[in-house]
Amino acid sequence: VSRIAFIGLGIMGAPMAANLVKAGHEVHGYNRGAAPRERLAEAGGTAAGSVAEAVEDAGLVITMLPDGPDVSAVCLGEAGAYAAARPGALHIDMSTIAPEVATELAEAAAARGLRALDAPVSGGQAAAVDGQLSIMVGGSGTDFDEALPVLQAMGTTVVHVGPAGSGQTVKAANQLIVAGTIELVAEAIVFLEAYGVDTGPAMQVLAGGLAGNRIIDRKSAAMLRRDFTPGFRVDLHHKDMGIVTAAARRKDVVIPLGALTAQLMTALRARGDGNLDHSALLKLVELLSGRVSDAR
Amino acid sequence: VSRIAFIGLGIMGAPMAANLVKAGHEVHGYNRGAAPRERLAEAGGTAAGSVAEAVEDAGLVITMLPDGPDVSAVCLGEAGAYAAARPGALHIDMSTIAPEVATELAEAAAARGLRALDAPVSGGQAAAVDGQLSIMVGGSGTDFDEALPVLQAMGTTVVHVGPAGSGQTVKAANQLIVAGTIELVAEAIVFLEAYGVDTGPAMQVLAGGLAGNRIIDRKSAAMLRRDFTPGFRVDLHHKDMGIVTAAARRKDVVIPLGALTAQLMTALRARGDGNLDHSALLKLVELLSGRVSDAR
Amino acid sequence: VSRIAFIGLGIMGAPMAANLVKAGHEVHGYNRGAAPRERLAEAGGTAAGSVAEAVEDAGLVITMLPDGPDVSAVCLGEAGAYAAARPGALHIDMSTIAPEVATELAEAAAARGLRALDAPVSGGQAAAVDGQLSIMVGGSGTDFDEALPVLQAMGTTVVHVGPAGSGQTVKAANQLIVAGTIELVAEAIVFLEAYGVDTGPAMQVLAGGLAGNRIIDRKSAAMLRRDFTPGFRVDLHHKDMGIVTAAARRKDVVIPLGALTAQLMTALRARGDGNLDHSALLKLVELLSGRVSDAR
Amino acid sequence: VSRIAFIGLGIMGAPMAANLVKAGHEVHGYNRGAAPRERLAEAGGTAAGSVAEAVEDAGLVITMLPDGPDVSAVCLGEAGAYAAARPGALHIDMSTIAPEVATELAEAAAARGLRALDAPVSGGQAAAVDGQLSIMVGGSGTDFDEALPVLQAMGTTVVHVGPAGSGQTVKAANQLIVAGTIELVAEAIVFLEAYGVDTGPAMQVLAGGLAGNRIIDRKSAAMLRRDFTPGFRVDLHHKDMGIVTAAARRKDVVIPLGALTAQLMTALRARGDGNLDHSALLKLVELLSGRVSDAR
Repeated sequence: VSRIAFIGLGIMGAPMAANLVKAGHEVHGYNRGAAPRERLAEAGGTAAGSVAEAVEDAGLVITMLPDGPDVSAVCLGEAGAYAAARPGALHIDMSTIAPEVATELAEAAAARGLRALDAPVSGGQAAAVDGQLSIMVGGSGTDFDEALPVLQAMGTTVVHVGPAGSGQTVKAANQLIVAGTIELVAEAIVFLEAYGVDTGPAMQVLAGGLAGNRIIDRKSAAMLRRDFTPGFRVDLHHKDMGIVTAAARRKDVVIPLGALTAQLMTALRARGDGNLDHSALLKLVELLSGRVSDAR
Repeated sequence: VSRIAFIGLGIMGAPMAANLVKAGHEVHGYNRGAAPRERLAEAGGTAAGSVAEAVEDAGLVITMLPDGPDVSAVCLGEAGAYAAARPGALHIDMSTIAPEVATELAEAAAARGLRALDAPVSGGQAAAVDGQLSIMVGGSGTDFDEALPVLQAMGTTVVHVGPAGSGQTVKAANQLIVAGTIELVAEAIVFLEAYGVDTGPAMQVLAGGLAGNRIIDRKSAAMLRRDFTPGFRVDLHHKDMGIVTAAARRKDVVIPLGALTAQLMTALRARGDGNLDHSALLKLVELLSGRVSDAR
Repeated sequence: VSRIAFIGLGIMGAPMAANLVKAGHEVHGYNRGAAPRERLAEAGGTAAGSVAEAVEDAGLVITMLPDGPDVSAVCLGEAGAYAAARPGALHIDMSTIAPEVATELAEAAAARGLRALDAPVSGGQAAAVDGQLSIMVGGSGTDFDEALPVLQAMGTTVVHVGPAGSGQTVKAANQLIVAGTIELVAEAIVFLEAYGVDTGPAMQVLAGGLAGNRIIDRKSAAMLRRDFTPGFRVDLHHKDMGIVTAAARRKDVVIPLGALTAQLMTALRARGDGNLDHSALLKLVELLSGRVSDAR
Repeated sequence: VSRIAFIGLGIMGAPMAANLVKAGHEVHGYNRGAAPRERLAEAGGTAAGSVAEAVEDAGLVITMLPDGPDVSAVCLGEAGAYAAARPGALHIDMSTIAPEVATELAEAAAARGLRALDAPVSGGQAAAVDGQLSIMVGGSGTDFDEALPVLQAMGTTVVHVGPAGSGQTVKAANQLIVAGTIELVAEAIVFLEAYGVDTGPAMQVLAGGLAGNRIIDRKSAAMLRRDFTPGFRVDLHHKDMGIVTAAARRKDVVIPLGALTAQLMTALRARGDGNLDHSALLKLVELLSGRVSDAR
């Protein structure tokens, strides 16, 4: 196994890096602040003192950061990853960022004799811990083949979806569908409750038919008890809806439901619920329907 | 087994009645026009000459009709089912109609010494033929228990969801989620295509994560090849969106995504695509995004 | 002048009837409850004891009632206006009701040898008092010409807009534009406030350009001070948005902004603000934008 | 009068600069390409060979450019306006750009000892020619007072609306209301036509009541004859809807009608109608309502 640099050891990055260590890889990790680096060392990795230190001599550089500007700063800065990387190194960005930034990074990598894949993930912290992420990968097929064994240490569904940027595009589409589905299920729940239907059995029968979806399967029970412990936070999904609406606009793709859902996600955040699970869209439908005293 | 009257032997009703025959029930069926009645006779049922003739002496009266006014006419007319039914007979309406009409029918039944369940179905013609419908039932628990063995001859998921009208309410919620999910998947597909993503693998990875839903599973392959053979027709889903938006309005429930999806379904129908599968919402997203010559 | 029957002496009807009296007409009025009838008598009209008593011997029958079912009940009931009216009498319904009900009334009138115009009004109570209503009239041109002098005693803009039902159709379009414009101005106000703009001068410059509209002219000052004294109540506009969305749907006309505005009006009402002025849509935009403690 | 530099002599800038000349100002203008500069010379101004040449020795620097990046390039570039301007010069940007870019420019100006106002305009080419623009100005009150006489040579309504960026914020709100109002009027027109109403008289009565607005006054006649000669082009309004939705998002302001209207404007552009007048939203409502053969 070759040496892997891992930049970004947060809620998602830490368990992902740990799974790489478990799979036998030599992982040199970096994150601002000592604590995340210490946890990596405890997990069997090597704490690096800087991005450049982590990256030097690594054949593979993985980034898992909050947003596009973070990835650009880490990669393109003066003492950044691309400046420090050895020739021919492969960068895999697993953050969720705008497709156009992913494309720009791929071009910047190529200009320096490096290679890049965009490989955002789906599944949340639990899947990161269990190594069961879904990973959607954009870039060249050859680079994908090379990265596949490493990615499989972190995820169970690893799919090559097209050229550079495609991974982020699919992730954006994923976030569009997820947010919209949550809102649809929320509208359905408030509607059913208003009519006095037994919502438990109703969810069961909805789950069994053409209306069936992963939100009903995984989140509706908690939604029915108004448990909005994240899971995936509203603030992050708000960021992602910004990515998908901007990316659709760039290509003149019209997404009326996506755009309206983005407004509702913004409302949830504006009202101070940014730290709740995104299924808290249910709170907003209730509020609009006058079905709760609004106690915030 | 007791005698069952079955009113409405159309695309859905005919195979449902046939499955009752197969399960050993004595089925007396009626539909306007000779052809549907002859098909029932061939399947082993008895063709009745009128609603009243089908209903007399039946312990159970099932209706499977296009819309609420049809059910009201069949049940409440002068020579209608309720006038002809024997005391204590149980009416099961399996049509998709407005919840308030279902509630009115239940009250009319009670006033005449009859009982009523609303039991709309989900799953389409294929499930009707295979006896694998999902059936959501509103009414009294006792009546549900009595009807259960008969309903199980037609469906695999048969769930009691609450008092009279609740079956229709859950069906309305089902149609809200289904239409909205189709639109979300359509927006995602046009978005992915605009970016040149490999949509086949993209659908695979979307299906595997939190964005996963039955529309992707069952319809996205046909959507990607622009095959809009029904399936469930736009005109019918348009009718159903009318039911759900009106029912939500009646209780002051706010459903922004549902209302916008209803507008898009109307547009599809207005443009002459009422006979296509409801997944043809994809055509509309394409049209709005300027990605097709509009050849209608 | 000939005798006029006036049914419906409420907030709008009372001053309209009084203006007819002032113009020299003999007005026989009816309303449930003694008080409205007494006020008409004080204004110089004649209080009738029933619809039939008001209508008999009148050449012109005017109705000004809350909603379509009220008009239908008054006109078509057993002791109703159409039964009591003398042959050839002209019915002018000035209520705001569904276009299809107006058309049905015109047909019912014709079937009994009567004539009917639909002539809803715009302008509110102040304009009713001042005789400065806008009146949009559907029906035959001859009947319009006959009614014109009488209508001009109540309004300054009296326009014939087409055959039976057209007056209500134009009123529905009016309510669509008014509600949507209020929401647009509300979104603009919250946006400007969020950026710390001087909203008074901003409204002045918006009023002077292509964004200029009657809502800014007449309501924005009150909106800026959060004074939502009606004016025209949310509950009534909610009713009217029901009329316009249903009427559009009936003809497969797609009105995405109208439909979304209707949802927002429902939300306002659902939250208990049905008695505020419709400009209270501003409260909802604020609520969604997290810019108010929600003190209801 | 002091010397004025005018950068950007396009459809709007050329007549604005000409009006400054007429008012007795010494105007040194620059635009890429010889033709616009020659027209300025013919109008009595002085053609400069570069931005720097136009700006040197000017007390006032006016820019009228397509979008924010253009303004930034002209002002902040190495041989740009800010580098060339004399100390204390006042920059008035009259382009329509994002509020945040306006704020950044004001800060950049201050850092170099210059002053800046953002002063976008409303009214279109005709108003630019006639010197009857509406001008909404952000920046310090003192700078506004100094600029006022010059601005009054170009516009009749010149209003100070707040600190730096406020002019652009009000312009964004203006564009939100204008686009939304066009869509509302378009929905109303298609609705009225579907019911066979006489749309001419209908527009007259709508114009006279609470639904009255500048779009009905100025554009509905052309809309009724499907004359979409610009006027203000769809592509430009699409750009502006991008500014307003992004600016609202930045402050967590929720604008459901604005966001949906932005989608419809994108659709119009995506379908190849970017060069039509923005009132062509009517075409889209017709298309969605199946009321036109789509001949593009």
